Amino acid sequence: MSDIKDIQDIRNLTRTVLDFPIKGIPFLDILPIFQNPKAVEFIINNIVDHVTSTKEKIDVVVGLEARGFLFGPILALRLNAAFVPIRKKGKLPGKVIDVEYQKEYGPDIFEIQEDAIKQDQNVIVIDDLMATGGTAVAAGKLVNKLGGKLLEYIFVVELTVFDGYKKLDAPLYSVLKYDT
Amino acid sequence: MSDIKDIQDIRNLTRTVLDFPIKGIPFLDILPIFQNPKAVEFIINNIVDHVTSTKEKIDVVVGLEARGFLFGPILALRLNAAFVPIRKKGKLPGKVIDVEYQKEYGPDIFEIQEDAIKQDQNVIVIDDLMATGGTAVAAGKLVNKLGGKLLEYIFVVELTVFDGYKKLDAPLYSVLKYDT
Repeated sequence: MSDIKDIQDIRNLTRTVLDFPIKGIPFLDILPIFQNPKAVEFIINNIVDHVTSTKEKIDVVVGLEARGFLFGPILALRLNAAFVPIRKKGKLPGKVIDVEYQKEYGPDIFEIQEDAIKQDQNVIVIDDLMATGGTAVAAGKLVNKLGGKLLEYIFVVELTVFDGYKKLDAPLYSVLKYDT
Repeated sequence: MSDIKDIQDIRNLTRTVLDFPIKGIPFLDILPIFQNPKAVEFIINNIVDHVTSTKEKIDVVVGLEARGFLFGPILALRLNAAFVPIRKKGKLPGKVIDVEYQKEYGPDIFEIQEDAIKQDQNVIVIDDLMATGGTAVAAGKLVNKLGGKLLEYIFVVELTVFDGYKKLDAPLYSVLKYDT
Protein backbone atom coordinates (compact mmCIF):
# COMPACT_ATOMS: atom_id res chain seq x y z
CA MET A 1 0.00 0.00 0.00
CA SER A 2 1.74 3.14 -1.20
CA ASP A 3 1.72 6.54 0.46
CA ILE A 4 -0.63 9.23 -0.80
CA LYS A 5 1.10 12.59 -1.00
CA ASP A 6 -1.15 14.55 -3.31
CA ILE A 7 -4.08 14.50 -5.68
CA GLN A 8 -1.95 13.06 -8.47
CA ASP A 9 -1.49 9.90 -6.41
CA ILE A 10 -5.27 9.54 -6.28
CA ARG A 11 -5.54 10.08 -10.02
CA ASN A 12 -2.94 7.36 -10.59
CA LEU A 13 -5.15 4.85 -8.75
CA THR A 14 -8.07 5.28 -11.15
CA ARG A 15 -8.17 3.37 -14.42
CA THR A 16 -10.11 3.45 -17.66
CA VAL A 17 -12.01 0.32 -18.68
CA LEU A 18 -12.95 0.27 -22.38
CA ASP A 19 -16.38 -0.77 -23.68
CA PHE A 20 -18.19 -0.55 -20.34
CA PRO A 21 -21.10 -0.68 -19.71
CA ILE A 22 -21.55 -0.90 -23.51
CA LYS A 23 -19.25 -1.01 -26.54
CA GLY A 24 -17.60 2.27 -27.41
CA ILE A 25 -17.84 3.77 -23.92
CA PRO A 26 -14.64 4.29 -21.88
CA PHE A 27 -15.53 3.93 -18.18
CA LEU A 28 -13.51 5.52 -15.37
CA ASP A 29 -13.12 2.91 -12.64
CA ILE A 30 -12.57 4.53 -9.26
CA LEU A 31 -12.76 1.30 -7.24
CA PRO A 32 -8.97 0.79 -7.05
CA ILE A 33 -8.96 3.85 -4.76
CA PHE A 34 -10.62 1.65 -2.14
CA GLN A 35 -7.68 -0.76 -2.22
CA ASN A 36 -5.74 1.92 -0.34
CA PRO A 37 -7.37 3.31 2.83
CA LYS A 38 -4.90 6.21 2.80
CA ALA A 39 -6.35 7.25 -0.55
CA VAL A 40 -9.92 7.14 0.79
CA GLU A 41 -8.78 9.12 3.83
CA PHE A 42 -7.12 11.70 1.56
CA ILE A 43 -10.32 12.19 -0.44
CA ILE A 44 -12.55 12.45 2.62
CA ASN A 45 -10.17 14.93 4.28
CA ASN A 46 -10.08 16.98 1.09
CA ILE A 47 -13.88 17.21 1.01
CA VAL A 48 -14.22 17.85 4.76
CA ASP A 49 -11.64 20.65 4.57
CA HIS A 50 -13.55 22.23 1.71
CA VAL A 51 -16.98 21.91 3.27
CA THR A 52 -16.01 23.09 6.75
CA SER A 53 -14.01 26.05 5.47
CA THR A 54 -16.66 27.50 3.23
CA LYS A 55 -20.08 26.25 4.29
CA GLU A 56 -22.62 26.54 7.06
CA LYS A 57 -23.10 23.54 9.33
CA ILE A 58 -24.22 20.62 7.14
CA ASP A 59 -27.27 18.77 8.50
CA VAL A 60 -27.64 16.13 5.81
CA VAL A 61 -25.33 14.41 3.32
CA VAL A 62 -27.34 12.89 0.45
CA GLY A 63 -25.64 10.09 -1.50
CA LEU A 64 -26.68 8.61 -4.83
CA GLU A 65 -27.03 4.85 -5.39
CA ALA A 66 -24.73 3.05 -5.57
CA ARG A 67 -21.22 4.53 -5.66
CA GLY A 68 -22.33 7.63 -3.78
CA PHE A 69 -22.90 5.25 -0.86
CA LEU A 70 -19.16 4.50 -0.81
CA PHE A 71 -18.31 8.07 0.20
CA GLY A 72 -21.49 9.55 1.67
CA PRO A 73 -21.74 7.76 5.03
CA ILE A 74 -18.04 8.38 5.83
CA LEU A 75 -18.43 12.05 4.97
CA ALA A 76 -21.64 12.35 7.02
CA LEU A 77 -19.92 10.83 10.05
CA ARG A 78 -17.02 13.29 9.78
CA LEU A 79 -19.45 16.21 9.50
CA ASN A 80 -21.65 14.89 12.33
CA ALA A 81 -24.52 14.94 9.85
CA ALA A 82 -27.29 12.56 8.79
CA PHE A 83 -26.77 10.40 5.73
CA VAL A 84 -29.70 10.00 3.36
CA PRO A 85 -29.69 7.68 0.33
CA ILE A 86 -31.32 8.37 -3.03
CA ARG A 87 -32.13 5.10 -4.77
CA LYS A 88 -33.62 3.76 -7.97
CA LYS A 89 -37.39 3.24 -8.02
CA GLY A 90 -38.69 0.47 -5.77
CA LYS A 91 -35.63 0.10 -3.55
CA LEU A 92 -36.59 2.32 -0.61
CA PRO A 93 -39.17 1.17 1.96
CA GLY A 94 -41.94 3.41 3.32
CA LYS A 95 -43.27 6.66 1.94
CA VAL A 96 -41.11 8.12 -0.82
CA ILE A 97 -41.20 10.92 -3.33
CA ASP A 98 -39.74 10.49 -6.81
CA VAL A 99 -38.34 12.31 -9.80
CA GLU A 100 -37.80 11.17 -13.37
CA TYR A 101 -34.52 11.86 -15.14
CA GLN A 102 -32.83 10.94 -18.42
CA LYS A 103 -30.02 8.42 -18.44
CA GLU A 104 -27.84 7.80 -21.49
CA TYR A 105 -30.12 4.96 -22.53
CA GLY A 106 -33.59 6.23 -21.53
CA PRO A 107 -35.62 7.57 -18.60
CA ASP A 108 -35.16 6.36 -15.03
CA ILE A 109 -36.68 7.22 -11.65
CA PHE A 110 -34.98 8.23 -8.39
CA GLU A 111 -36.66 8.07 -4.98
CA ILE A 112 -36.00 9.48 -1.50
CA GLN A 113 -37.82 8.74 1.77
CA GLU A 114 -40.15 11.65 2.44
CA ASP A 115 -39.19 12.00 6.12
CA ALA A 116 -35.46 11.90 5.40
CA ILE A 117 -34.92 15.66 5.15
CA LYS A 118 -36.65 18.32 7.25
CA GLN A 119 -37.62 21.81 6.16
CA ASP A 120 -34.65 24.21 5.87
CA GLN A 121 -31.98 21.65 6.70
CA ASN A 122 -28.63 22.33 5.07
CA VAL A 123 -27.90 19.62 2.54
CA ILE A 124 -25.00 18.58 0.31
CA VAL A 125 -25.31 15.93 -2.40
CA ILE A 126 -22.39 13.58 -3.05
CA ASP A 127 -21.69 11.17 -5.87
CA ASP A 128 -18.55 9.50 -7.10
CA LEU A 129 -18.55 11.04 -10.57
CA MET A 130 -20.23 13.76 -12.59
CA ALA A 131 -20.51 13.46 -16.36
CA THR A 132 -23.57 15.17 -17.88
CA GLY A 133 -24.93 16.16 -14.47
CA GLY A 134 -28.35 14.64 -15.15
CA THR A 135 -28.48 12.46 -12.05
CA ALA A 136 -27.17 15.27 -9.86
CA VAL A 137 -29.88 17.64 -11.03
CA ALA A 138 -32.51 14.98 -10.32
CA ALA A 139 -31.12 14.53 -6.81
CA GLY A 140 -31.23 18.27 -6.26
CA LYS A 141 -34.90 18.32 -7.22
CA LEU A 142 -35.70 15.71 -4.57
CA VAL A 143 -33.83 17.73 -1.94
CA ASN A 144 -35.74 20.86 -2.92
CA LYS A 145 -39.10 19.04 -2.91
CA LEU A 146 -38.51 18.04 0.71
CA GLY A 147 -37.69 21.62 1.66
CA GLY A 148 -33.96 21.10 2.15
CA LYS A 149 -31.48 23.88 1.34
CA LEU A 150 -29.10 22.46 -1.23
CA LEU A 151 -25.75 24.11 -0.52
CA GLU A 152 -23.49 22.24 -2.89
CA TYR A 153 -22.90 19.22 -5.12
CA ILE A 154 -19.77 17.25 -4.26
CA PHE A 155 -18.08 14.83 -6.66
CA VAL A 156 -14.92 12.82 -6.27
CA VAL A 157 -14.38 13.01 -10.03
CA GLU A 158 -15.69 15.58 -12.53
CA LEU A 159 -15.52 14.77 -16.24
CA THR A 160 -15.31 18.37 -17.45
CA VAL A 161 -15.80 17.61 -21.14
CA PHE A 162 -19.57 17.24 -20.65
CA ASP A 163 -20.00 20.75 -19.15
CA GLY A 164 -22.34 19.21 -16.57
CA TYR A 165 -21.84 22.17 -14.24
CA LYS A 166 -24.02 24.28 -16.54
CA LYS A 167 -27.04 22.18 -15.59
CA LEU A 168 -26.58 22.46 -11.83
CA ASP A 169 -28.67 24.81 -9.71
CA ALA A 170 -26.16 24.87 -6.84
CA PRO A 171 -22.37 25.23 -6.61
CA LEU A 172 -20.18 22.28 -7.48
CA TYR A 173 -17.00 20.99 -5.84
CA SER A 174 -14.95 18.15 -7.26
CA VAL A 175 -11.80 16.60 -5.82
CA LEU A 176 -10.44 15.53 -9.22
CA LYS A 177 -11.11 16.95 -12.68
CA TYR A 178 -10.60 14.89 -15.84
CA ASP A 179 -10.61 16.89 -19.06
CA THR A 180 -10.48 14.02 -21.53
CA MET B 1 -30.52 14.00 17.65
CA SER B 2 -30.71 11.83 20.75
CA ASP B 3 -27.82 10.23 22.61
CA ILE B 4 -27.01 6.58 22.01
CA LYS B 5 -26.26 4.76 25.26
CA ASP B 6 -26.67 1.14 24.29
CA ILE B 7 -27.79 -1.35 21.67
CA GLN B 8 -31.45 -0.86 22.60
CA ASP B 9 -31.20 2.74 21.40
CA ILE B 10 -30.07 1.44 18.00
CA ARG B 11 -32.93 -1.05 17.91
CA ASN B 12 -35.38 1.76 18.65
CA LEU B 13 -34.22 3.61 15.54
CA THR B 14 -35.17 0.77 13.19
CA ARG B 15 -38.73 0.41 11.94
CA THR B 16 -40.83 -2.21 10.20
CA VAL B 17 -42.46 -1.28 6.88
CA LEU B 18 -45.31 -3.59 5.92
CA ASP B 19 -45.81 -4.99 2.41
CA PHE B 20 -42.31 -4.16 1.12
CA PRO B 21 -40.94 -5.02 -1.37
CA ILE B 22 -44.11 -7.04 -2.04
CA LYS B 23 -47.44 -7.55 -0.29
CA GLY B 24 -47.29 -9.70 2.84
CA ILE B 25 -43.60 -9.08 3.56
CA PRO B 26 -42.65 -6.98 6.63
CA PHE B 27 -39.38 -5.17 5.85
CA LEU B 28 -36.95 -3.98 8.52
CA ASP B 29 -35.89 -0.45 7.59
CA ILE B 30 -32.48 0.40 9.05
CA LEU B 31 -32.10 3.73 7.25
CA PRO B 32 -33.34 5.84 10.22
CA ILE B 33 -30.09 4.82 11.93
CA PHE B 34 -28.30 7.10 9.48
CA GLN B 35 -30.32 10.08 10.69
CA ASN B 36 -28.18 9.96 13.83
CA PRO B 37 -24.39 9.92 13.31
CA LYS B 38 -23.93 8.84 16.93
CA ALA B 39 -25.87 5.69 16.12
CA VAL B 40 -23.68 4.94 13.10
CA GLU B 41 -20.60 5.60 15.24
CA PHE B 42 -21.93 3.22 17.91
CA ILE B 43 -22.42 0.43 15.38
CA ILE B 44 -19.02 0.89 13.76
CA ASN B 45 -17.28 0.99 17.16
CA ASN B 46 -19.14 -2.16 18.18
CA ILE B 47 -17.92 -4.01 15.08
CA VAL B 48 -14.37 -2.64 15.28
CA ASP B 49 -14.13 -3.68 18.95
CA HIS B 50 -15.28 -7.16 18.05
CA VAL B 51 -13.03 -7.58 15.03
CA THR B 52 -9.86 -6.19 16.63
CA SER B 53 -10.31 -8.16 19.86
CA THR B 54 -10.75 -11.55 18.27
CA LYS B 55 -9.32 -11.54 14.76
CA GLU B 56 -6.06 -11.39 12.88
CA LYS B 57 -5.30 -8.20 10.97
CA ILE B 58 -8.04 -7.71 8.38
CA ASP B 59 -6.74 -6.95 4.88
CA VAL B 60 -10.05 -6.61 3.05
CA VAL B 61 -13.61 -5.67 3.99
CA VAL B 62 -16.06 -6.93 1.36
CA GLY B 63 -19.45 -5.18 1.23
CA LEU B 64 -22.59 -6.31 -0.57
CA GLU B 65 -24.57 -4.01 -2.87
CA ALA B 66 -26.23 -1.78 -1.90
CA ARG B 67 -26.76 -1.42 1.86
CA GLY B 68 -23.47 -3.19 2.64
CA PHE B 69 -21.86 -0.13 1.02
CA LEU B 70 -23.29 2.05 3.79
CA PHE B 71 -21.16 0.34 6.47
CA GLY B 72 -18.29 -1.35 4.62
CA PRO B 73 -16.15 1.63 3.60
CA ILE B 74 -16.34 3.20 7.09
CA LEU B 75 -15.36 -0.10 8.66
CA ALA B 76 -12.50 -0.62 6.19
CA LEU B 77 -11.14 2.83 6.96
CA ARG B 78 -11.21 2.15 10.71
CA LEU B 79 -9.43 -1.18 10.19
CA ASN B 80 -6.91 0.33 7.75
CA ALA B 81 -8.09 -2.26 5.23
CA ALA B 82 -9.16 -2.27 1.59
CA PHE B 83 -12.85 -2.08 0.76
CA VAL B 84 -14.12 -4.30 -2.06
CA PRO B 85 -17.69 -4.20 -3.39
CA ILE B 86 -19.71 -7.18 -4.55
CA ARG B 87 -22.35 -6.08 -7.03
CA LYS B 88 -25.17 -7.42 -9.13
CA LYS B 89 -24.26 -8.67 -12.61
CA GLY B 90 -23.17 -6.04 -15.10
CA LYS B 91 -22.39 -3.27 -12.60
CA LEU B 92 -18.63 -3.75 -12.11
CA PRO B 93 -16.16 -2.66 -14.82
CA GLY B 94 -13.19 -4.77 -15.92
CA LYS B 95 -12.55 -8.46 -15.38
CA VAL B 96 -14.91 -10.04 -12.89
CA ILE B 97 -15.81 -13.46 -11.58
CA ASP B 98 -19.38 -14.35 -10.72
CA VAL B 99 -21.59 -16.67 -8.70
CA GLU B 100 -25.27 -17.48 -9.00
CA TYR B 101 -27.49 -17.52 -5.92
CA GLN B 102 -31.16 -17.86 -5.11
CA LYS B 103 -33.17 -14.83 -4.06
CA GLU B 104 -36.67 -15.06 -2.65
CA TYR B 105 -38.08 -14.54 -6.13
CA GLY B 106 -35.64 -16.42 -8.36
CA PRO B 107 -31.94 -16.70 -9.25
CA ASP B 108 -29.57 -13.72 -9.37
CA ILE B 109 -25.86 -13.22 -10.06
CA PHE B 110 -23.19 -11.49 -7.95
CA GLU B 111 -19.85 -10.29 -9.31
CA ILE B 112 -16.50 -9.19 -7.87
CA GLN B 113 -13.49 -7.71 -9.66
CA GLU B 114 -10.95 -10.48 -10.07
CA ASP B 115 -7.96 -8.40 -8.93
CA ALA B 116 -9.79 -7.08 -5.84
CA ILE B 117 -8.54 -9.73 -3.39
CA LYS B 118 -5.08 -11.31 -3.37
CA GLN B 119 -4.20 -14.88 -2.39
CA ASP B 120 -4.33 -15.49 1.39
CA GLN B 121 -5.56 -12.03 2.33
CA ASN B 122 -7.69 -11.94 5.47
CA VAL B 123 -11.23 -10.99 4.54
CA ILE B 124 -14.46 -10.17 6.35
CA VAL B 125 -17.81 -9.79 4.56
CA ILE B 126 -20.28 -7.16 5.77
CA ASP B 127 -23.93 -6.60 4.97
CA ASP B 128 -26.67 -4.68 6.70
CA LEU B 129 -28.94 -7.63 7.39
CA MET B 130 -28.95 -11.42 7.30
CA ALA B 131 -32.19 -13.31 6.75
CA THR B 132 -31.79 -16.68 4.99
CA GLY B 133 -28.05 -16.18 4.51
CA GLY B 134 -28.22 -16.91 0.78
CA THR B 135 -26.50 -13.74 -0.35
CA ALA B 136 -23.83 -14.06 2.34
CA VAL B 137 -22.96 -17.59 1.24
CA ALA B 138 -22.69 -16.39 -2.37
CA ALA B 139 -20.35 -13.60 -1.28
CA GLY B 140 -18.23 -16.11 0.63
CA LYS B 141 -17.87 -18.22 -2.51
CA LEU B 142 -16.51 -15.25 -4.43
CA VAL B 143 -13.99 -14.52 -1.67
CA ASN B 144 -12.87 -18.17 -1.68
CA LYS B 145 -12.61 -18.27 -5.49
CA LEU B 146 -10.16 -15.36 -5.38
CA GLY B 147 -8.05 -17.12 -2.74
CA GLY B 148 -9.03 -14.89 0.17
CA LYS B 149 -9.28 -16.29 3.70
CA LEU B 150 -12.81 -15.58 4.87
CA LEU B 151 -12.55 -14.97 8.62
CA GLU B 152 -16.08 -13.86 9.44
CA TYR B 153 -19.44 -12.60 8.24
CA ILE B 154 -20.55 -9.36 9.89
CA PHE B 155 -24.14 -8.13 9.94
CA VAL B 156 -25.66 -5.10 11.57
CA VAL B 157 -28.94 -7.00 11.97
CA GLU B 158 -29.53 -10.77 12.11
CA LEU B 159 -33.09 -12.07 11.67
CA THR B 160 -32.61 -15.24 13.71
CA VAL B 161 -35.93 -16.85 12.73
CA PHE B 162 -34.49 -17.95 9.36
CA ASP B 163 -31.59 -19.92 10.92
CA GLY B 164 -29.34 -18.44 8.23
CA TYR B 165 -26.24 -19.14 10.32
CA LYS B 166 -26.60 -22.84 9.49
CA LYS B 167 -25.77 -22.10 5.85
CA LEU B 168 -22.62 -20.10 6.55
CA ASP B 169 -19.15 -21.60 6.11
CA ALA B 170 -17.46 -19.06 8.40
CA PRO B 171 -18.29 -17.56 11.81
CA LEU B 172 -20.97 -14.92 12.07
CA TYR B 173 -21.13 -11.74 14.14
CA SER B 174 -24.20 -9.53 14.33
CA VAL B 175 -24.63 -6.28 16.23
CA LEU B 176 -28.39 -6.72 16.67
CA LYS B 177 -30.50 -9.88 16.71
CA TYR B 178 -34.22 -9.82 15.93
CA ASP B 179 -36.07 -13.00 16.85
CA THR B 180 -39.44 -12.18 15.31
